[in-house]
Amino acid sequence: MAEEQAKADDNVILKADDNIILVGHKPAMAYVLAVITQFSNNSREVHIKARGRAISTAVDVAEIVRRRFLQDAQIRNISIGTEEKEMEDKRKLNISTIAITLGK
Amino acid sequence: MAEEQAKADDNVILKADDNIILVGHKPAMAYVLAVITQFSNNSREVHIKARGRAISTAVDVAEIVRRRFLQDAQIRNISIGTEEKEMEDKRKLNISTIAITLGK
Repeated sequence: MAEEQAKADDNVILKADDNIILVGHKPAMAYVLAVITQFSNNSREVHIKARGRAISTAVDVAEIVRRRFLQDAQIRNISIGTEEKEMEDKRKLNISTIAITLGK
Repeated sequence: MAEEQAKADDNVILKADDNIILVGHKPAMAYVLAVITQFSNNSREVHIKARGRAISTAVDVAEIVRRRFLQDAQIRNISIGTEEKEMEDKRKLNISTIAITLGK
């Protein structure tokens, strides 16, 4: 059940309304493509978000986009935070988050 | 040889002159302690730096310091970048970096 949930989440790369790319455990290039697609749909800003171990992939995604594909994209903002996650056994776990805003 | 090098690097947590904490593969609390020590030696700012997979640990360190230990510490700046690393077979690899500045 938990695994199914995780798999389902993995497929939600793009939250369409808000220009948000949710970075998970796929290879960075999957999210790079999602960011580029979002910009080519006339978005002026794209928000790259990740939690936990996926934070380093989110940084990879932002760096690959602006260095290799969209040299006119700039980092507008980077913020970090903490979310509380409830485990199955009701223990609460703090998990770090990052949000990187790319704009052009 | 490469492994020895990695182990040696792992022990350089603190670059003393510059208030820089280099986050590697130890548990986050090792670096949290280094940051707190640095502030208690009258540093006004501490720079938390990491590369590659250690980036998410660096975010954990900043969040644990300011939420659990030093509530008056603020995030002054976050920057991300890319370094080129030469592998043993002379291939070049791009590796993402992060630098988080905490101040109080």
